[in-house]
Amino acid sequence: MVLDLVDKHQETIQAAIKALHTRTFFAHYPENPSPEIYGENTDKEAREKFKASLNKRFEELQQGEPEGWVGQEESPYEQQPLGITYPYFAPDTLVERADKAFHAWRKVKPDLRAAMLVESLERLRERFFEIAYATMHTTGQAFLMSFQASGPHAADRALEAVATGYEELTRFPESAEWEKPMGKYNIRLQKSWVAVPKGISLVIGCSTFPTWNSVPGLYASLVTGNPVIVKPHPKAVLPMAMVVAEIQKVLVENGHSPDICQLAVDAEDHLITKELAEHRKVKLIDYTGSSRFGEYLEQLPGKITFTEKAGVNSVILDSVEDIDKVVQNLAFSVSLYSGQMCTAPQNFFVPAAGVKAGEQTIPYEEVTRKLAEAITSLVNNPKAAPHVLGAIQNKATVERVKEAQGHVLLSTCDFSNPMFANARTCSPVIYEADVADKESYSRELFGPIMLIIRTKDTAQSIELAQELALEHGAISCGAYTTSPEVKDQIKEAMSLAGTPVSFNLTGGIYLNQHAGFSDFHVTGANPAGNASFTNPEFVIKRFTWVGFREPAI
Amino acid sequence: MVLDLVDKHQETIQAAIKALHTRTFFAHYPENPSPEIYGENTDKEAREKFKASLNKRFEELQQGEPEGWVGQEESPYEQQPLGITYPYFAPDTLVERADKAFHAWRKVKPDLRAAMLVESLERLRERFFEIAYATMHTTGQAFLMSFQASGPHAADRALEAVATGYEELTRFPESAEWEKPMGKYNIRLQKSWVAVPKGISLVIGCSTFPTWNSVPGLYASLVTGNPVIVKPHPKAVLPMAMVVAEIQKVLVENGHSPDICQLAVDAEDHLITKELAEHRKVKLIDYTGSSRFGEYLEQLPGKITFTEKAGVNSVILDSVEDIDKVVQNLAFSVSLYSGQMCTAPQNFFVPAAGVKAGEQTIPYEEVTRKLAEAITSLVNNPKAAPHVLGAIQNKATVERVKEAQGHVLLSTCDFSNPMFANARTCSPVIYEADVADKESYSRELFGPIMLIIRTKDTAQSIELAQELALEHGAISCGAYTTSPEVKDQIKEAMSLAGTPVSFNLTGGIYLNQHAGFSDFHVTGANPAGNASFTNPEFVIKRFTWVGFREPAI
Repeated sequence: MVLDLVDKHQETIQAAIKALHTRTFFAHYPENPSPEIYGENTDKEAREKFKASLNKRFEELQQGEPEGWVGQEESPYEQQPLGITYPYFAPDTLVERADKAFHAWRKVKPDLRAAMLVESLERLRERFFEIAYATMHTTGQAFLMSFQASGPHAADRALEAVATGYEELTRFPESAEWEKPMGKYNIRLQKSWVAVPKGISLVIGCSTFPTWNSVPGLYASLVTGNPVIVKPHPKAVLPMAMVVAEIQKVLVENGHSPDICQLAVDAEDHLITKELAEHRKVKLIDYTGSSRFGEYLEQLPGKITFTEKAGVNSVILDSVEDIDKVVQNLAFSVSLYSGQMCTAPQNFFVPAAGVKAGEQTIPYEEVTRKLAEAITSLVNNPKAAPHVLGAIQNKATVERVKEAQGHVLLSTCDFSNPMFANARTCSPVIYEADVADKESYSRELFGPIMLIIRTKDTAQSIELAQELALEHGAISCGAYTTSPEVKDQIKEAMSLAGTPVSFNLTGGIYLNQHAGFSDFHVTGANPAGNASFTNPEFVIKRFTWVGFREPAI
Repeated sequence: MVLDLVDKHQETIQAAIKALHTRTFFAHYPENPSPEIYGENTDKEAREKFKASLNKRFEELQQGEPEGWVGQEESPYEQQPLGITYPYFAPDTLVERADKAFHAWRKVKPDLRAAMLVESLERLRERFFEIAYATMHTTGQAFLMSFQASGPHAADRALEAVATGYEELTRFPESAEWEKPMGKYNIRLQKSWVAVPKGISLVIGCSTFPTWNSVPGLYASLVTGNPVIVKPHPKAVLPMAMVVAEIQKVLVENGHSPDICQLAVDAEDHLITKELAEHRKVKLIDYTGSSRFGEYLEQLPGKITFTEKAGVNSVILDSVEDIDKVVQNLAFSVSLYSGQMCTAPQNFFVPAAGVKAGEQTIPYEEVTRKLAEAITSLVNNPKAAPHVLGAIQNKATVERVKEAQGHVLLSTCDFSNPMFANARTCSPVIYEADVADKESYSRELFGPIMLIIRTKDTAQSIELAQELALEHGAISCGAYTTSPEVKDQIKEAMSLAGTPVSFNLTGGIYLNQHAGFSDFHVTGANPAGNASFTNPEFVIKRFTWVGFREPAI
């Protein structure tokens, strides 16, 4: 059966490896939730299934009898607990089981591991709508983003990790004959090499992108032979519980222990992440979340960490072809999921002398006014706004927006979602920050907060964007310039700050979006994170090449 | 001129990349110091040149006027200072110059960087004999090892690093058009990627293998675009001074700053390594040496380190075909350069019931006696011994040998080199360590010290070898067994301890030897070091992939 899987998925894996190298467009899982692609009743059935799962135990996992049932999720759309509970196991139990599973899983050949993992993604595909509703009602994302980010985009990122891992694992031969001429005779050695997995892997999820940010580390660790303990954010467990359940099903069907991939859930009165992370048997840690906790993890001795933390993303406005298209694009970028994306822009650097547009110069005040108008217009568009803004995952985000300071350019974040009367919502606000008051724009203000900073000129904008990225981290950068020289200056500055740049985006593509198989997500080279989806380093660090040799017979 | 170099060396680089993947025998630089290969008078001229260089300034570097001239080398063969002095520069000066050079070097295309680096190796080839005498009279290695390790083997390891780096730098396209179908229209982006070097690299050398252990990091950093400050051990500067001088010549000939690769030398009263390592602009550190200093470097925040530290290498004796061939091979392994190799075996685990040989069992006492006899016979062979043992680099090593404790099986380390009456020498001693007194065999006893540990059985030997490697590090392991089951058990145990194993070596190949392009030297997965010559990780961590994108026109 396992061998059938290898045949079944070899083509997908090879196509994915090819895409990694060309970096042209590739998507194995369609992002369009249309009935033609995903089936006529799939959406409706998934919605009903989600409703039926509320206030019940999640019983799909194959982890045996738990110590208790725990759950603390609530829907940002209803501001009501979901009432779903998950099996609780003590960290020592999880680690002990993972350790046992390790010694079987590491001996499974890479092609079999890869095939089983792709099979699990194919099973997830059947549940993309279910995962979408689970994501929507834990993160507050609008439905379309919930579907795309947690479904096809996450599955493609997982496939990317599998393909990268598989390529690295098969990079060197399993064995070779080494024959050294010594003049009168030859020395002949039979050599072999094995990619030895590092050990137990812990994947710590976040509350806003529970699957998208967790599956790359999960699949990278699994394909390289490490057992994984998945510890989702306590407020966003359900999407990853489904992922783990599907992986366990495929493992068990193919004669493997479900403990190769376990779900770990915090009890209400007992958060288990630190205990797991500090366990001497845990060797690999993947993490998305706050800088403070990420830095704590990075300094744990004897662990290899892959982190994505907070950053301060900049937009540099220098010169444009059409300011209206630009402000529309940017208004969408800050409004998308109400700024709760790690790639959302926060600091907008606008030269005091204004932004050039061909022979014209658009005064600073007009630029900021147009930005505010574009946001207002988007927020006031009842057909678009609810689907763009979504809801606010965490109460603290709304409070942060209300407490933000500076010269107000657009203030109220009030916004009602016509479909969900109780939704926790907040539309973008704009403040003007004083360029001299660096402190005021040097922190990530997570949520729909846009800061406009009036700079002396574009040179200062670039300098500040670079400095902020180097010192406080950045995951994305947007830049608008019609000058090739300025473009080169920006590339130069931001490449040294380990920050990718999107130039002159207008229309239906946004700087927030990072595409699997093409865009490296996070570079690993500034304080916003030490890892990247999915560069070779992301998989290589999860195993060790060890060689054996003996005289050839 | 630079383009000519690319043509000139492309074939070499491609052959090296191919060898990396097949891992069959490959050597670009012949290890045989014969006049047919290296020229009739080369040896003689080099010896004269070395003599002429004594008690003078080393004036080949292109680093401008120094603050002073310093040097503290002495020959282990003469126990006299070499009297060679090197230009001293303050750490801040070196870093400042490296920082300036960085911004030019990082913009040079990978193929040009690789070609210049291979050219520097070709220049070094002309000086292999000079480097050999420099190595001999700083490290105490015998001439043949000095030639091979510091000359062709080091150059091949450097080429290996260049090839690995070049392959990684060209792994992704410089640019690609990304076209995403959106149904009614396509989004088209022009994307590009750049491999951004991390910054200033510091390469810290050791006193026993000054070039072999330093050039992999040096060339790996240079090929990936980082400027390098080379800080050799104060007692073994000359070999690396020559390497740096040749690199500088090639750089300058091709219009580049010599500050891309600088030599840093400690003043007698001012060791500069920590100051350099802690400098905020130093981002990469390569190091070979003591565990204590290595661990200090590894914990420095904001640095990427590549370390090779101390380890405790084991030999597991289970069953043999011909015990005499085995003890001869092992006697050579411990005697080679008087045990001053990081790959030299130290702990020999012998089962109390003896070692099987076909139907026979060789009693424990006979095994140890045969080991002692094989060493004695080698040491008493005047044609072989001086060329195998060499001299002792550091006085402390002789003292350590004299102070070693346990039940003596072979004690005196007295040995005279007929060609160098003043040589500091010491032949191997053998002690029996009590298996219950783990402390006594858990440290690296650097030098010609062999410990024999009588175990309950082979299972205990394997368990101890694994435990020592996991807790105290190991770089090599030798095992003798005719049982496929035992072989699998050893592979299993040592692979989890990140230690390569050489099985059943007899004749002219030794467990100490790690061949470029085939054997990974150090795995990075136990306390003996966190890096490996040259796995992909060794180069990948030296740069960052950063992407740019904009609408395609």
